[in-house]
Amino acid sequence: MGRLRFLPAGVSLLLSRGGAKRGGRGASSTLASDVNSFVTRTKTCGELRSTHVGQNVTLCGWIQYQRQEQFVILRDFQGLTQLLIPQDQASSHLKKILYDAPVESVVRVTGTVVSRPPEQANPKMPTGDIEVKVDTAEVLNLCKKLPFEVKEVSKKNEALRMQYRYLDLRSVQMQYNLRLRSQMVMRMREFLCNHHGFVDVETPTLFKKTPGGAKEFVVPSREAGKFYSLPQSPQQFKQLLMVGGLDRYFQVARCYRDEGSRPDRQPEFTQIDIEMSFVDQAGIQALVEGLLQYSWPEERGPIAIPFPSMNYDEALAMYGTDKPDTRFGMKLVEVTDIFRNVEVEFLQKSLSEPQSTVRAICIPQGMKYLQNKDLESLNELTKSQFNQGLLHFILRSDGSMKSRLDKFLNEEQKLALIRAVRANAGDVVLLSAGEHEKVCSALGKVRLESADLLEAGGLPLRDPSAFHFLWVVDFPLFLQKEENPAELESAHHPFTAPHPSDEHLLYTEPAKVRGQHYDLVLNGNEIGGGSIRIHNAKQQRFILEDILKEDTELLSHLLEALDCGAPPHGGIALGLDRLICLVVGAKSIRDVIAFPKSFKGRDLMSNAPDYVAPQELEPYHVQVAWPLTQVKVSSS
Amino acid sequence: MGRLRFLPAGVSLLLSRGGAKRGGRGASSTLASDVNSFVTRTKTCGELRSTHVGQNVTLCGWIQYQRQEQFVILRDFQGLTQLLIPQDQASSHLKKILYDAPVESVVRVTGTVVSRPPEQANPKMPTGDIEVKVDTAEVLNLCKKLPFEVKEVSKKNEALRMQYRYLDLRSVQMQYNLRLRSQMVMRMREFLCNHHGFVDVETPTLFKKTPGGAKEFVVPSREAGKFYSLPQSPQQFKQLLMVGGLDRYFQVARCYRDEGSRPDRQPEFTQIDIEMSFVDQAGIQALVEGLLQYSWPEERGPIAIPFPSMNYDEALAMYGTDKPDTRFGMKLVEVTDIFRNVEVEFLQKSLSEPQSTVRAICIPQGMKYLQNKDLESLNELTKSQFNQGLLHFILRSDGSMKSRLDKFLNEEQKLALIRAVRANAGDVVLLSAGEHEKVCSALGKVRLESADLLEAGGLPLRDPSAFHFLWVVDFPLFLQKEENPAELESAHHPFTAPHPSDEHLLYTEPAKVRGQHYDLVLNGNEIGGGSIRIHNAKQQRFILEDILKEDTELLSHLLEALDCGAPPHGGIALGLDRLICLVVGAKSIRDVIAFPKSFKGRDLMSNAPDYVAPQELEPYHVQVAWPLTQVKVSSS
Repeated sequence: MGRLRFLPAGVSLLLSRGGAKRGGRGASSTLASDVNSFVTRTKTCGELRSTHVGQNVTLCGWIQYQRQEQFVILRDFQGLTQLLIPQDQASSHLKKILYDAPVESVVRVTGTVVSRPPEQANPKMPTGDIEVKVDTAEVLNLCKKLPFEVKEVSKKNEALRMQYRYLDLRSVQMQYNLRLRSQMVMRMREFLCNHHGFVDVETPTLFKKTPGGAKEFVVPSREAGKFYSLPQSPQQFKQLLMVGGLDRYFQVARCYRDEGSRPDRQPEFTQIDIEMSFVDQAGIQALVEGLLQYSWPEERGPIAIPFPSMNYDEALAMYGTDKPDTRFGMKLVEVTDIFRNVEVEFLQKSLSEPQSTVRAICIPQGMKYLQNKDLESLNELTKSQFNQGLLHFILRSDGSMKSRLDKFLNEEQKLALIRAVRANAGDVVLLSAGEHEKVCSALGKVRLESADLLEAGGLPLRDPSAFHFLWVVDFPLFLQKEENPAELESAHHPFTAPHPSDEHLLYTEPAKVRGQHYDLVLNGNEIGGGSIRIHNAKQQRFILEDILKEDTELLSHLLEALDCGAPPHGGIALGLDRLICLVVGAKSIRDVIAFPKSFKGRDLMSNAPDYVAPQELEPYHVQVAWPLTQVKVSSS
Repeated sequence: MGRLRFLPAGVSLLLSRGGAKRGGRGASSTLASDVNSFVTRTKTCGELRSTHVGQNVTLCGWIQYQRQEQFVILRDFQGLTQLLIPQDQASSHLKKILYDAPVESVVRVTGTVVSRPPEQANPKMPTGDIEVKVDTAEVLNLCKKLPFEVKEVSKKNEALRMQYRYLDLRSVQMQYNLRLRSQMVMRMREFLCNHHGFVDVETPTLFKKTPGGAKEFVVPSREAGKFYSLPQSPQQFKQLLMVGGLDRYFQVARCYRDEGSRPDRQPEFTQIDIEMSFVDQAGIQALVEGLLQYSWPEERGPIAIPFPSMNYDEALAMYGTDKPDTRFGMKLVEVTDIFRNVEVEFLQKSLSEPQSTVRAICIPQGMKYLQNKDLESLNELTKSQFNQGLLHFILRSDGSMKSRLDKFLNEEQKLALIRAVRANAGDVVLLSAGEHEKVCSALGKVRLESADLLEAGGLPLRDPSAFHFLWVVDFPLFLQKEENPAELESAHHPFTAPHPSDEHLLYTEPAKVRGQHYDLVLNGNEIGGGSIRIHNAKQQRFILEDILKEDTELLSHLLEALDCGAPPHGGIALGLDRLICLVVGAKSIRDVIAFPKSFKGRDLMSNAPDYVAPQELEPYHVQVAWPLTQVKVSSS
């Protein structure tokens, strides 16, 4: 009912000259659209049916292929229609136009919709009952050269697809991805703007560097030595909008982050950016749940709300990550007590460390799916990434267990381990011991890698059509700095408010304070994060200056604003590219972006970035500092 | 009916917990919105009426002012509500909380809606029939210091408003401007996306320099010597989307232009960017007319479509500009024939030049409203800007005419001039002679300046509540370069298609070719421009290489794309900031942008742009070239 709110009965027919092409609520916007208004076609190539027989139509599209000297398959974004070239002498010019044109040439035809002879009907093709008998035809543009066939495009390597992105975009998959993205964002806007009174406010992208804001692109200005910065998010602006009384803000915001060469990241990306005044964590969560339910595409099945919630400690202990993929089990299990008295040196050494733990996970049917080399590479992985060794126990079909520790464990201990991880015959149990966070993180990684191995072997674990949303909450507000554990840094950003019940600890044991931060996780991917913000200038200043030792000069405008009647406020940002990527089941976010950059940040089509003449840099008072070149500056 | 399509009777009540606050179709989105969902208030400060008497409510807002020890006026974005502090001893803490807090402090109160005593009702205040008797009150944030009073903000100088933008945003006017902007853009999206099947596609802003693309900000990349460029528009991408078969594209696109210090321009701005395949000029125009009519705010009155159209030659000849303000007359009139035989040296000299003309405009009641100094400064203006002299004729109340040319003109000529410009007693006629375009441009400027003078004197000419849209069409495709008239440059951009009936002239007399370009003008402001594009690679290459002498290397991807089956296409871009500025009647586009830059490109609140440490520039291989500093580069 939610989806049809804007489409009372009859309206879709009133609005739609194109007719209904797809059912379902998710496609409602498309249903109501007249995609033939203002243009020279009367129908698309996807909409003609038996009911149109006898109508004169004008179609525009690309020649997909020609066959048997008389059939031309015409394609546009909505589908394929078969054109029939009359075989009489008077129509020989039509054959010349349509049959001789190279595929992917653009043509406009007029003709009459006719039924196909029954034996030629194609039930697999939505327009397969009809064809269009051509009256007139016109080549609008010849296709002269094609580096590869459009229908083959998805098989080509990605660099070639990027170079000829305008051809790649013609593929059914890219058309679907970009059109679904557009519709889903529109539904979000309806929910926020029309249903809940949010105000879409554009914030600047030419800003200044934020404190500690590494990874920000700079933009030289005409003032010598001064630079704008492309912000990583509109964080400061959205908080200032709250101070300004625009108390329900959203923006589909372009953000920038220079992460160098990281796979599946983009230097510019888009987030659904939301901020509200007079709201608490539950309010933001309810809003986001409503937003996603309302905008969720029908064809992906319904999603249930409210989403489950898990605190950070649980997530780390059970899944070894702050973004658990809850579509499958294989959870981490604490087995410290079982091994406390096992006289093995590395165990005892590990257990003597502070915050030590022994944890295990059970890989179902591991004997069948994991080769020795797999177990070795998992061990190498945890060693190299987490400095954690990995021990494996193989549960034979006769119930006996095989491991390096066999002789150190008594039967009771073996049974306790099997019971703890609920292992069955044929399973493999992987174990690690040491500092809590490192052990959990290592096993969290092992859990995902093992799942890949099991699935590669043919054991399905993660349903690609399932969507498991999860809130992760109660993060620590601060983390110890890696380079100097005596110092603290923000776990997320310095504007996150402390948990109300931990506020008193700010002044005594700040490392123990939880923040009012919440992450939204979908199938093991972080798709959003937000927090209730600090609205008290004194508290904000204490955290910045006394805890984080930041220079508050750069944030003086924000601190001043908090003293001018700032309302309590909070918000969230959803990563749109990642969300759409998961919704359409794409391999990479590059498949849901019209013109993405390569993982090195290059546009392979236009060849951006590119060299710029020195005189074009002059107004900006910068010059290139070529590597391997020594530059001496002397004042005149 | 168009506006109510999405809101059938009853739906607004179903959706709205907040209740109806404003009438009219334009506010339909607001009407349907629940602005109290997900937050801790139950009502806004603008919605309580007599019908709510007896209800318990929770309000959040800012203290506007306090009076008589018992009344507190609470404000939020929707209005004002009077709070009544009970005067009994048990409520003394409430008085302490609410009455002692500084104005602009943020509070939350619960209370009961009660009727005001009849003599205290305030008919000017929408909530003036009621007040809220406070049960509980809580200060959410104290306002500690305020550089000026919020209600005084509009009177402050603009620099101060910019510095404290978060306070400026609390003003009724800024709230109205930004909320209307959001609603109007949302209506545009509904029209394009939901009604007409357009696809919202985001295009990159990290691109590369376009040929001849001066005024583009550069962004240093991590590849030494290579820069991205912030594009002035998504022009290339939207054309490539057409080649890619996304045949109805739109985007609310952020664009960048470095114009240095120009008043009422912004380094970043927003355009409604539209492109379609298989469309002609009339199709784009009909689309834009439908779009504006659909999204037009109800409170600004209806707009009639189709918009009138004028070709460029007419606009120049009658209004002396390509963006005529058609809200008032005072058109330019050709009077060449009258003066052809007048034996005055400067006239004869002017008329001997090629493409010469004599034109005049009549300033109604000029005798009353134009002082001598005004006439002098108009003359100086045309001399300095156009190198054109200005001659004035004063039409006395007795019907006689006074001018420097009195003795050179016979009665017949005088009468002919009066008749030609339809002058009445008391009017002033201003005349200029010389080259057609210069004369027209000079008088076009004089027309606007005179209108300012007449209006300053008290004669209303341009109805501020009238909206005169006008298409200007049939522009020349090329202009002679100012520095070398033998060379041609694009009047708009090199992708504009020639007028079909002029195509043959491309190869013989390109200067005579008209382009399929169209500008949309509103009250004398260009608010949009677009064209049918070239879709033929050969023609595009000829224009770029043979006519414009451009290096096509930088555009090789686009030329290649045109050869791969590019459909005929065209589009338009509407300047959103300017459009909203005109709709709300703001003085400057800065008043419809949440965080604008000053005319020098500075953010006066955060102090952007700012200095950046040299080590932060290192990864980008640039260094500051300080002016007045000599830099020696020596290879190592």
